[in-house]
Amino acid sequence: MISESQLESALKELFDDPKFTAEPAGLYDPLRYMIAIGGKRIRPRLCLLAYSLFKDTLDESILQPASALEVFHSFTLIHDDIMDRSPLRRKVETVWKKWNEDTAILSGDVMCIESYNRIAKAPAAVLGAVLNLFTRTAAQVCEGQQYDMDFEKEEQVPMSEYINMIGLKTGVLIACSAKMGALIGGASQTDADNLYEYGFNLGLAFQVADDYLDAYGDEKVFGKPIGGDIVNNKKCWLTTRALEKADPAMKSALLEALALPSATAEEKAVKVAKVKGFYDALGIADEAKNEIVRLTAVAMDYAAASCSGEGLEALRRYAEKLVGRTS
Amino acid sequence: MISESQLESALKELFDDPKFTAEPAGLYDPLRYMIAIGGKRIRPRLCLLAYSLFKDTLDESILQPASALEVFHSFTLIHDDIMDRSPLRRKVETVWKKWNEDTAILSGDVMCIESYNRIAKAPAAVLGAVLNLFTRTAAQVCEGQQYDMDFEKEEQVPMSEYINMIGLKTGVLIACSAKMGALIGGASQTDADNLYEYGFNLGLAFQVADDYLDAYGDEKVFGKPIGGDIVNNKKCWLTTRALEKADPAMKSALLEALALPSATAEEKAVKVAKVKGFYDALGIADEAKNEIVRLTAVAMDYAAASCSGEGLEALRRYAEKLVGRTS
Repeated sequence: MISESQLESALKELFDDPKFTAEPAGLYDPLRYMIAIGGKRIRPRLCLLAYSLFKDTLDESILQPASALEVFHSFTLIHDDIMDRSPLRRKVETVWKKWNEDTAILSGDVMCIESYNRIAKAPAAVLGAVLNLFTRTAAQVCEGQQYDMDFEKEEQVPMSEYINMIGLKTGVLIACSAKMGALIGGASQTDADNLYEYGFNLGLAFQVADDYLDAYGDEKVFGKPIGGDIVNNKKCWLTTRALEKADPAMKSALLEALALPSATAEEKAVKVAKVKGFYDALGIADEAKNEIVRLTAVAMDYAAASCSGEGLEALRRYAEKLVGRTS
Repeated sequence: MISESQLESALKELFDDPKFTAEPAGLYDPLRYMIAIGGKRIRPRLCLLAYSLFKDTLDESILQPASALEVFHSFTLIHDDIMDRSPLRRKVETVWKKWNEDTAILSGDVMCIESYNRIAKAPAAVLGAVLNLFTRTAAQVCEGQQYDMDFEKEEQVPMSEYINMIGLKTGVLIACSAKMGALIGGASQTDADNLYEYGFNLGLAFQVADDYLDAYGDEKVFGKPIGGDIVNNKKCWLTTRALEKADPAMKSALLEALALPSATAEEKAVKVAKVKGFYDALGIADEAKNEIVRLTAVAMDYAAASCSGEGLEALRRYAEKLVGRTS
């Protein structure tokens, strides 16, 4: 099996020089910027890990498709940041804020197309399967973003619909990363499907963990102000579960708290404290932690159905790195 | 050879029911709308025509990739209309105007992805070649749009740069349409390349004709108010050539006319009349018509290098339909 340090240096090389066409600069500079500000490269990392379970040599036919996952993810962030009017991402200005909206639209578009340029490097024998998987996933990510925006207009969303939304917005691309690596590595259909489910459930766990940390994390570790979802009236697992669990009286009191203004720093602090008071009264934090553990266990069951030994251990370490941030 | 009426009914069937996924409606309704308001389907039409030069039977492996060209083109229009703040397209409201900007961004994204869903239906034997061709073309179209926007800030653009820009923005997708049809039809590399050049030069002729008609067309036939490029300070072949041809005194007088305000109907009429006065004094209209004829002849030379008889005649009729609007 390819060692983790080999995968690490392959990833580093891949994104230190992402090889975007040079001209016109107005179009490609935002791509270089977006890749440079980084992130944890969790999708290409998982793709390479899944591949390494089945094959021992790295070449462009896996490295390029793996990088496509990061390029595609960055494209969705560029466009999401316009739609969400987010001024900051990873502590620096977002593309629409640093340049302008038109640049963010068009550079995002070319980044989406660039991801296909990299997908096209998959081995001919699995190109059709990889292309279909990636394209279905890409459309689902857009569907997830649409549901997310639609939900902003709703007072309450059923848990099943919330899970469906985060599955589309976050789960499927992580699932696709694992399955794509497996397919290019030459895995059987069953193993590829098991790795898809591993990634999907891990993706759900990752999103629930993100929701949990948004309310209960350490600001220094989390990298964003705590309580952002509450302040911005964003649907999250905690609110969804709290509204589902509360009795009618508590539910209307919670809805009242969620409707509080949050313009000033003081209003923000009051609103976050009040809403978290309801979470605490309902035991929502513990439920979220249990749900993360449960989803991770489901993911590992799928992993164990196709892997054992060293490979399974690597998938366990990956899962812990990704969602183990609650402990 | 497949008859033109067979191609016609295949095209009709393809776009009467474009088969977009149903949910969420907020995401897919704009796609259905954009395809329904139509256009002349010139790209899939050319793709099918080029295919029919080499193969006699139509099936999904050509029909779906052909439709991808229209879906991709519609995606670029949705995003261009946001960037250009255009309220109308084909006499109806544009997507950002009818819905909103966020919807136009996200629906455009999913439309770009949907075009790849259709490209993926190409026969396995040529899928890699088709995917590479389409992806390179798609990136070039974005590059063309970026140059177009960059040029708005320039007082004057050299003719070579203007031609490069319309080649990217308009030429390459028509070229790609022809070559893709040829590749899927089983053409040799040489024939596929000749059809690419046929489409590329025809695409340039098409754009120069569009520029000509914008100033000299019949509003009822053209479908847009005459003089729109002049009113909106858009770079076009006529202005580019006029600024290149004028002596220094006339050039500065023309630049002055191009800088005139155009807020009211009267200002618009005055500005269009003044600028067209310079075109007339310099004989630009005739030069444009000659350029269209010249580019079309170049296109037909490439066609003749790979086709003869009935096939060549069909390519000639297609060219006349596309750019023969000056006569």
